[in-house]
Amino acid sequence: MLREPNKADLINAYEIVKQYAHRTPVLSSEQINEIAGCKLFFKCENMQKVGAFKFRGAINAINQLDDEAVKKGVATHSSGNFAQALALSAKMKGVPAHIVMPRTAPQIKKNAVAGYGAKIYESEPTQEAREALLDKVVTETSATFIHPYNDYDIIAGQGTATLELIEDTDKLDIIISPVGGGGLLSGTLLSAHYFSPETKVFAAEPAGADDAFRSIRDDKIYPSVKPNTICDGLLTSLGDKTFPIIKKYVNEIITVSDEVTIKAMHLIFERLKIVVEPSAAVTLAIVMDNPEKFAGKNVGLILSGGNVDLNKLPW
Amino acid sequence: MLREPNKADLINAYEIVKQYAHRTPVLSSEQINEIAGCKLFFKCENMQKVGAFKFRGAINAINQLDDEAVKKGVATHSSGNFAQALALSAKMKGVPAHIVMPRTAPQIKKNAVAGYGAKIYESEPTQEAREALLDKVVTETSATFIHPYNDYDIIAGQGTATLELIEDTDKLDIIISPVGGGGLLSGTLLSAHYFSPETKVFAAEPAGADDAFRSIRDDKIYPSVKPNTICDGLLTSLGDKTFPIIKKYVNEIITVSDEVTIKAMHLIFERLKIVVEPSAAVTLAIVMDNPEKFAGKNVGLILSGGNVDLNKLPW
Repeated sequence: MLREPNKADLINAYEIVKQYAHRTPVLSSEQINEIAGCKLFFKCENMQKVGAFKFRGAINAINQLDDEAVKKGVATHSSGNFAQALALSAKMKGVPAHIVMPRTAPQIKKNAVAGYGAKIYESEPTQEAREALLDKVVTETSATFIHPYNDYDIIAGQGTATLELIEDTDKLDIIISPVGGGGLLSGTLLSAHYFSPETKVFAAEPAGADDAFRSIRDDKIYPSVKPNTICDGLLTSLGDKTFPIIKKYVNEIITVSDEVTIKAMHLIFERLKIVVEPSAAVTLAIVMDNPEKFAGKNVGLILSGGNVDLNKLPW
Repeated sequence: MLREPNKADLINAYEIVKQYAHRTPVLSSEQINEIAGCKLFFKCENMQKVGAFKFRGAINAINQLDDEAVKKGVATHSSGNFAQALALSAKMKGVPAHIVMPRTAPQIKKNAVAGYGAKIYESEPTQEAREALLDKVVTETSATFIHPYNDYDIIAGQGTATLELIEDTDKLDIIISPVGGGGLLSGTLLSAHYFSPETKVFAAEPAGADDAFRSIRDDKIYPSVKPNTICDGLLTSLGDKTFPIIKKYVNEIITVSDEVTIKAMHLIFERLKIVVEPSAAVTLAIVMDNPEKFAGKNVGLILSGGNVDLNKLPW
């Protein structure tokens, strides 16, 4: 897709994604509501295939390929969830997948990607090395490069989580999405805009990686330089496709310390009895940190994923 | 109720419980199915109110009280989940609750019980001291003593989890329930017997607390003496009401080491993205330990609870 997704594009993505993805549950906890002072509805993308929302965008993007592109396959570089999401989506559609991964990526993630039948290319762990190797792979294979977030089909796919959340709840006053590169946030904003226009959308960002906050404030994309946060899914910079959508529709980007995010993550484990990664808990963290903003409201939270090292929980 | 629950009693319990309890989700994971070699359906009582199935029995038992008993209240002794389950149920129904807890019980559990408005009586941590104090409390208050598991109304209430599981799945070849005192197992057996009679029921028991296994084998109740297991919900002995039901209906009691249970618990956290206690994971552990018994079958697992100390996870 060459332009910002519109309402029909989002419905189209929804029709595609629902054939392949889990319709993840929306959970609530009276005890968390008491602590937070508002009614919270947690959209559990930690229970999505590959353990994160990224599967939605990947399967939508692969479904847009024409027959020629399907034969040649897809390529990306990723150290984490998107590599698995694209590899699984490609396997489901019978499309070859070429994934550049830093050689320092955890073996368990490489195994998962290889397990879905994707071809892995190991690069040095710098951004430059990854991009150079990806260019080489794309040139050699003629595969279609699919960007993990700065891509309109990816954005439309990620938006389907919010569309389901809106369908499965009564009127939400606010929806909160984490922001890293902005793919999930952009999809959330577009779905809320077209399907629940009275709902405000807030973005949650780690204070130690606040490039999106500063980018929107100053109206120019700041790259994410030396981010310092445990939210390892939120380290990337906004792109030229996500920035304008966020600029246009976001109500506010709110930053929060890792300390509060860890408390929020613990509360989610303890009360909702689910496993989430820090990058997901950041949404509850901004509610806990700013109770006056959310008091008495109906608030939807996008729990982006649950891929966390269980041997290194941060408490 | 003065006799073993029949089909009508179970339906009656179901009608009561559904007004107060969560209808907990049934989850599946293709990756766990691949590892296990069968199709597993996890009934998530870790997501039940107070984080365990115990709420079902407690709310059912309280609903059976007559007006006079409602005024005088209920009493029990418990260090754990049942104390919270009875306290919350009593609060919901406006019934006074008197809970004897060992003074060594974690403060967080005492706080939870007190938070539901129950009156706590602290005893020395021995069984004798707990029972003596309970007798005194019952004599003074005329409250109705509700046993945590050796009680037909409790058993009928616990059986509603299995009734929901049967409704929410295609035909199950096998259902697996953990066994401690036998309340959950008895309810599981009765619900399967009346609502899915072709389904076999297996019980999962820690090898370090195998009194139920030995009791059924030798046809007499062995008390649980010095149990040695991390499954802290499965330390109690069978009762004179649970033993005959288990004897009559159980297909087999299978014991398993804590080592395998910890692996199963880790796999549930990692793949289902949910928090369970060891006493719940023991069900998956017997599948992993005995793959030939379950190969290719549809197997329902009752995940009994999720109340685990997140600071002391056993891996």
